[in-house]
Amino acid sequence: MKSAGLDPIIDSGGNILGKREGKNPSLKPIAFGSHIDMVPDGGNYDGTLGSLAALEVIEVLNENSVVTQHPLEVIIFANEEGGLIGSSAMVGKLTPDGLKQISQSGLVMAEGIKGIGGKPDSLQNSSRKKGDIRAFLELHIEQGGILENENLQIGIVEGIVGILDCEITVEGLANHAGTTPMKLRKDALLAASKLIIVVNEVIDSVPGNQVGTVGKIVALPGAYNVVPGKVTLGLEIRDLSWEKIEMLLSEIEKRAASIATASDTKISIVREASFSKPALTDKFLQQKISESAKALGLKTKYMQSGAGHDSQQMASIVPVAMIFVPSVGGISHSPKEFTKATDMTNSANVLLQTIFLVDKG
Amino acid sequence: MKSAGLDPIIDSGGNILGKREGKNPSLKPIAFGSHIDMVPDGGNYDGTLGSLAALEVIEVLNENSVVTQHPLEVIIFANEEGGLIGSSAMVGKLTPDGLKQISQSGLVMAEGIKGIGGKPDSLQNSSRKKGDIRAFLELHIEQGGILENENLQIGIVEGIVGILDCEITVEGLANHAGTTPMKLRKDALLAASKLIIVVNEVIDSVPGNQVGTVGKIVALPGAYNVVPGKVTLGLEIRDLSWEKIEMLLSEIEKRAASIATASDTKISIVREASFSKPALTDKFLQQKISESAKALGLKTKYMQSGAGHDSQQMASIVPVAMIFVPSVGGISHSPKEFTKATDMTNSANVLLQTIFLVDKG
Repeated sequence: MKSAGLDPIIDSGGNILGKREGKNPSLKPIAFGSHIDMVPDGGNYDGTLGSLAALEVIEVLNENSVVTQHPLEVIIFANEEGGLIGSSAMVGKLTPDGLKQISQSGLVMAEGIKGIGGKPDSLQNSSRKKGDIRAFLELHIEQGGILENENLQIGIVEGIVGILDCEITVEGLANHAGTTPMKLRKDALLAASKLIIVVNEVIDSVPGNQVGTVGKIVALPGAYNVVPGKVTLGLEIRDLSWEKIEMLLSEIEKRAASIATASDTKISIVREASFSKPALTDKFLQQKISESAKALGLKTKYMQSGAGHDSQQMASIVPVAMIFVPSVGGISHSPKEFTKATDMTNSANVLLQTIFLVDKG
Repeated sequence: MKSAGLDPIIDSGGNILGKREGKNPSLKPIAFGSHIDMVPDGGNYDGTLGSLAALEVIEVLNENSVVTQHPLEVIIFANEEGGLIGSSAMVGKLTPDGLKQISQSGLVMAEGIKGIGGKPDSLQNSSRKKGDIRAFLELHIEQGGILENENLQIGIVEGIVGILDCEITVEGLANHAGTTPMKLRKDALLAASKLIIVVNEVIDSVPGNQVGTVGKIVALPGAYNVVPGKVTLGLEIRDLSWEKIEMLLSEIEKRAASIATASDTKISIVREASFSKPALTDKFLQQKISESAKALGLKTKYMQSGAGHDSQQMASIVPVAMIFVPSVGGISHSPKEFTKATDMTNSANVLLQTIFLVDKG
């Protein structure tokens, strides 16, 4: 950022900010960027691609001596993977409790923020307010296989899905697997299996891009020779519409009650305290991305982001948009994460052209 | 045993043996007994009831100055719960490898046997051969709820079921639960759920008392936000007929292959090294138990033992039979294990009368 002439600073939340003057200092800045932290054993593209593309935009402007009307601002968010920490801080949503969480590094969040040069005790000083920024644009790898499957180059993100997690408990009766006849059993794992199938049926029962996953299961006592007495499941539902998420959960609850009755088990579904509501992107910005891509001869698709991104926090104070880039094999959060150089170049060009269109107003 | 005049000895395998002379020393002894060890946090009836009932028989004979034609022998087996250790030793099946296992107490099996007075280095000296014993009778709590449910007093055991354990692995593809559309998933837990239901369907598809249980499940990586990529299951099938167990497993394998194809997963079913073949009891002895119970006005049922017992080892060298006594609530291996005094008295009387009938020949 320094060699691109940005004179970067670190804000109280630990985010790295680099501003470039515009011709009209009364205009609010057009911001763009992503994050550079990664999950353990992750890849080289998630976050990093959008951060480097933002820098590339600045360098191209410098090389061609172009100055935009609006000021520009590159934002590199802190600790995205740990729960959108830097972007939460920037929009004033990182709470004292949030600062006490233990981060992946083992440090308490507040200490981690200090370690990268932030000031966790004065977050309010650098939080941004509604109207402070003209637009925020985030270029990011898709992390799914849709663009590659459909042979498209650019995804125009309509929104970032909401996420609802529930812990499901199925209680039956643990009993000797040799001496308990099949018809006298209250097998919690058998009931849980029926529920897992029901989750998938309910999610597939309506049109749309909603997803539902049972990713966790624990069956107790967990021995060859004991009928399972208790099973806990982790259920997650994601969609762009919170109403649809609620409707799907309600249908799952209804069908779980039938399974419980039929299997003489008890099934309880409890929402986890943390959830995230869907965040929609800005229609005008979507349109500008679409025009830029078309002008460059690129094939596009309007799509949702199934994963969380800093843009969803930023959306509470600024119009946001996201440019998705194909991920080879749809693989992410893995050392196998890969995006082709051509796709990276295409997307950085779309970012640059979108900034020009937004700058024109 | 000493106060009942039995002059007990401990054999090389750590079993406690007490002989009572008969009128005809050329006859082989009629043996009876059970075990007195218990599982951790177990109850007061499993094994102990059969051991005390055997002593009660001797005391009643002493009190009434009755001497049988055959010699009698009370056998209290060592470490039944640890894998039928004492009875395996008695029939010559406890191997050098078996002696090296770590027991529940933390001791190597051979040291444990030494600790209770056995001689693990000379097991062959006290192993019994085919023809050494006329009959072995074991009185034991049912450990299931069938007799209580049907309001019966005595179970006549037709055999001890065989047990086959298999480890099942379902391999799909772990992927991001937000960015992977439902139709692009290879969800190992969804396929495993279908297989668990199939196991129950296959077991219930033929008449009989066979049981099949999936008691263990591990899904990896095991997070709310990741589609499970790999699941391992523990499957156990029990029945009196080994052919039926093989037929049921073969049907499960066939249907597992269909699930794998339909879900684009890989399913492998691998047998565990340890298994136990069914052990049938002796028809003549079954008949004598039945006659004794009827003469005492007790209601009986021919049934299988779903749990393992020392009798199944003894069956390889001597005709065996088992007398089952109702377990309240079918509960076993728990401090809540309970059998009513009346039922205990009834069963000890059946044991005594059966010994008389066998003694008559």
